[in-house]
Amino acid sequence: MANSKYEYVKSFEQPDVLLPNTWIVVRIDGRGFHKLSDRYGFIKPNDRRALDLMNAAAMEVMKELPDLCIAYGVSDEYSFVFHPSCQLFERRSAKLVTTIVSTFTAHYIYQWGTYFPSTPLQPPYLPSFDGRAVLYPTTRILRDYMSWRQVDCHINNLYNTTFWTMVQQGGMSNTDAERELQGTVSSDKNEILFKRFGINYNNEDEMFKKGSVVYRQYQLEDPKPEAKSRHVDDDEALVDESKTSKSQQDKLRKLRRKAQVVVDHVDIIKDEFWERRPWILSGKPGKLPDA
Amino acid sequence: MANSKYEYVKSFEQPDVLLPNTWIVVRIDGRGFHKLSDRYGFIKPNDRRALDLMNAAAMEVMKELPDLCIAYGVSDEYSFVFHPSCQLFERRSAKLVTTIVSTFTAHYIYQWGTYFPSTPLQPPYLPSFDGRAVLYPTTRILRDYMSWRQVDCHINNLYNTTFWTMVQQGGMSNTDAERELQGTVSSDKNEILFKRFGINYNNEDEMFKKGSVVYRQYQLEDPKPEAKSRHVDDDEALVDESKTSKSQQDKLRKLRRKAQVVVDHVDIIKDEFWERRPWILSGKPGKLPDA
Amino acid sequence: MANSKYEYVKSFEQPDVLLPNTWIVVRIDGRGFHKLSDRYGFIKPNDRRALDLMNAAAMEVMKELPDLCIAYGVSDEYSFVFHPSCQLFERRSAKLVTTIVSTFTAHYIYQWGTYFPSTPLQPPYLPSFDGRAVLYPTTRILRDYMSWRQVDCHINNLYNTTFWTMVQQGGMSNTDAERELQGTVSSDKNEILFKRFGINYNNEDEMFKKGSVVYRQYQLEDPKPEAKSRHVDDDEALVDESKTSKSQQDKLRKLRRKAQVVVDHVDIIKDEFWERRPWILSGKPGKLPDA
Amino acid sequence: MANSKYEYVKSFEQPDVLLPNTWIVVRIDGRGFHKLSDRYGFIKPNDRRALDLMNAAAMEVMKELPDLCIAYGVSDEYSFVFHPSCQLFERRSAKLVTTIVSTFTAHYIYQWGTYFPSTPLQPPYLPSFDGRAVLYPTTRILRDYMSWRQVDCHINNLYNTTFWTMVQQGGMSNTDAERELQGTVSSDKNEILFKRFGINYNNEDEMFKKGSVVYRQYQLEDPKPEAKSRHVDDDEALVDESKTSKSQQDKLRKLRRKAQVVVDHVDIIKDEFWERRPWILSGKPGKLPDA
Repeated sequence: MANSKYEYVKSFEQPDVLLPNTWIVVRIDGRGFHKLSDRYGFIKPNDRRALDLMNAAAMEVMKELPDLCIAYGVSDEYSFVFHPSCQLFERRSAKLVTTIVSTFTAHYIYQWGTYFPSTPLQPPYLPSFDGRAVLYPTTRILRDYMSWRQVDCHINNLYNTTFWTMVQQGGMSNTDAERELQGTVSSDKNEILFKRFGINYNNEDEMFKKGSVVYRQYQLEDPKPEAKSRHVDDDEALVDESKTSKSQQDKLRKLRRKAQVVVDHVDIIKDEFWERRPWILSGKPGKLPDA
Repeated sequence: MANSKYEYVKSFEQPDVLLPNTWIVVRIDGRGFHKLSDRYGFIKPNDRRALDLMNAAAMEVMKELPDLCIAYGVSDEYSFVFHPSCQLFERRSAKLVTTIVSTFTAHYIYQWGTYFPSTPLQPPYLPSFDGRAVLYPTTRILRDYMSWRQVDCHINNLYNTTFWTMVQQGGMSNTDAERELQGTVSSDKNEILFKRFGINYNNEDEMFKKGSVVYRQYQLEDPKPEAKSRHVDDDEALVDESKTSKSQQDKLRKLRRKAQVVVDHVDIIKDEFWERRPWILSGKPGKLPDA
Repeated sequence: MANSKYEYVKSFEQPDVLLPNTWIVVRIDGRGFHKLSDRYGFIKPNDRRALDLMNAAAMEVMKELPDLCIAYGVSDEYSFVFHPSCQLFERRSAKLVTTIVSTFTAHYIYQWGTYFPSTPLQPPYLPSFDGRAVLYPTTRILRDYMSWRQVDCHINNLYNTTFWTMVQQGGMSNTDAERELQGTVSSDKNEILFKRFGINYNNEDEMFKKGSVVYRQYQLEDPKPEAKSRHVDDDEALVDESKTSKSQQDKLRKLRRKAQVVVDHVDIIKDEFWERRPWILSGKPGKLPDA
Repeated sequence: MANSKYEYVKSFEQPDVLLPNTWIVVRIDGRGFHKLSDRYGFIKPNDRRALDLMNAAAMEVMKELPDLCIAYGVSDEYSFVFHPSCQLFERRSAKLVTTIVSTFTAHYIYQWGTYFPSTPLQPPYLPSFDGRAVLYPTTRILRDYMSWRQVDCHINNLYNTTFWTMVQQGGMSNTDAERELQGTVSSDKNEILFKRFGINYNNEDEMFKKGSVVYRQYQLEDPKPEAKSRHVDDDEALVDESKTSKSQQDKLRKLRRKAQVVVDHVDIIKDEFWERRPWILSGKPGKLPDA
């Protein structure tokens, strides 16, 4: 029995190849994590176990997909960044996004018991994630995207830290705390924390304040004096690499697999992070650390 | 610290809303399941445990998303069908696809131990799935899509059953079996099975021959004499329902949640299946079975 | 000198193939025609010369592209309809839209002098048109689109006729006329026209009231008693025709070229128009009128 | 009569906004110009009248759309370039493309008689153009696109000049000339022209060899020594300008309107052209020439 009679339905599949030579960010978000964090008793404002589990899953995604340059996570979201030169799955959007979402979910579910040993999953209420791809045409804009997420992390964490301290240590109702915080700026919140509760926000956990940065580790480089000139080379490099052959791409992929994937909680808004780790934006593997 | 300086990056997110009033099929596929089925010792040509696990995960997806009308699974793939009137997530493609992929993956990983009690998962080699959405503009074409998958199931299963019988029971090498089967038609394979191995293909497991159909169960209806007129009403109905209010949509969703989700292994190419279960194509809940 | 060094830029061209088996409507609109109609002294509320010129240009588009089923024009807009089975330019959206826009513009400019013999074009203020493609998945929705445009024509024309009669014959200022018409319904406007100015709106020009329908003329058919069943056949037919070979498509195209293209000012909301001209929705040429 | 019953059809219009901060190239091509050039007796290999008409139409497009930075034309094609910061029509693809195609067509038809005074247009065989938009994410790639077209111009013109000289002056048949040119490189063709016909290709018309570049004229600047650093500033500038307010955009547009639009036949592959006219890539108006 041939299948030719029905095969015409394949013609309805439409291409979804992403524009070449642009940064691809796949951002995933926990689905209904507000409710889910209640169900599984996540600690407020930050549950270290939940964040560690997010980071563990993200690291597995980074290991499985060497085409990824960097990932940044905060709360129940994670952004995975493909280099402009990436040719994985011919840059098909749905394929890239679903592969990341599914791999992340698989590891999140699988490792749940490691991070929540005494809180088993309760089907059918399993954690899951949605995701989407967004394109950023230049390195400058990609860096602005990363900064956007880290500034968001800071804003939310300062708010949540203050709010939950007022509720948990100050005995206020949620409504009262919310009302008092309305219209306040950063310095107000810092002052509430310090004056009322003796908490210096600067001493809070770096993971909570900065979020989590996941990348491949090579030997750090000395920042170049004329930092700006870097960008040029970057964007020029992109073009060249997009023209590298398939075998060269495979070779690069193998080199990237050798690097250790690390998670860090550092500033990614300033230039220093990027200047000392030029391999992230260049897409060219750095020098492996001495053993 | 306001985030306005970087917020412009949000403008790079592009809409991906799917054309209204068209059937949406989200097909997911196991990633690298050929290798994976070796690693976890799946039985050839069909591993009942693996198929049952696929079906279990698919049923959870159907329960979680009442907007789904029907799903059809074969091997390591599953097609989930949203009705043309579906407004879930404003019909955003990435959101629909990733929600299904992630929910499916979560249940697949979570229930792995139930179906493979003596074969634990071996990280980092976890099963994962990719997926994509395809639009079908009319009910006729949607049915042709479903037929395409079921014919494919039949073709592949007859081939695989014959091949593996020749190898496993006939002691042939993979290469020899492959060579002998080249260019054969269905009747040839049936004959090989029957004459050499005494196997009547018709007696093979329905799940293997037909694949798995997952849908909501209502009281079966008597097939109408003039079947054709049904299609008209269907396609007219689509238009109307797309104009139903949000509250009506919520009401329909609740009604759908009440129906039991069942898995079946039946012919979905002929009209009968669809005529006796008109709610699948109409998108209107049927009559719940008497308790 | 080989061009290979730069040819990689071709890879940035992205496919824009429209979903198969759906109706394609290309609607074009005059750019800045409000200003333009002042510059060239168009008569208010309807300038027969301008409408005749629109129709003349539309007829040339219909003749040049036999894949078009029907076109509908009102004011400075025109909708051109490709059948779901259309394979012209592999259904590439930009190619379809720009071909129609450019062909229409060329004939509009070329024939300007015929319709406005005493009002020459004043460069650089030349008329031009923009356009876009919209997909409609079923025949019912396509007909609703056509009805939408014709209802719009009626609403606007009744308003404009009343408004300009109040201004031109009643001596009212634009502002006063606008204010009086605010909140009125059709019967109010009919009454103003009749009671104050002795104008029976029904006697207005059909072209102004109904807009212009352009299609290929075959022998009219008798309306079938069970009109509804027609739709089924239509949508089934679509599928079949999409599978017709290239040579069959060419043959159909030739047949369509033989039919005379006519412009009509009739109701296209009710079934009758479509039932008597089944070739428009079926995409199958009718019987040529006896010579 | 309200139109609400049918208005739902508007929901089928899908957004087609182009990715922000990327170069937009709208390339238009003559439809069937091979046949058309025969019909209207275009001179081979280059018809100055036809090229002048193309340039005249392109200049009108540039004047009408101050958001355009530059245009490049060769044969029956023209590429129009919008700056990454362009917000015209909210960057809707169909609107941008059809506006250019229609405006170009209108002026091409209108001015036909000026350039072909003794060859009137023969309806229905009017010239028309199709077009499409392509995105280029960096200035480097945009320049590579421009180089690609100019190299193509050179390759085709050298071939056509040699071919038609062999036919017209050498009395060869088309087939013989084609056969002899097969596999030849540039130097071979130069030699044929020079040795057999005494033609020095370098002395051919610059318009034929280089194509036509259309841009706004400001005072030329001295090329900066460190040319490379320019790109950085460019790409950084793009981001900034994309954030300029609507009123600032309007102001820039007005400034651009004041500049004279010129057509030039020069090298656009080397840096010099761009370095002396930095306003083209920066999107910032230069200094108007002294009166």
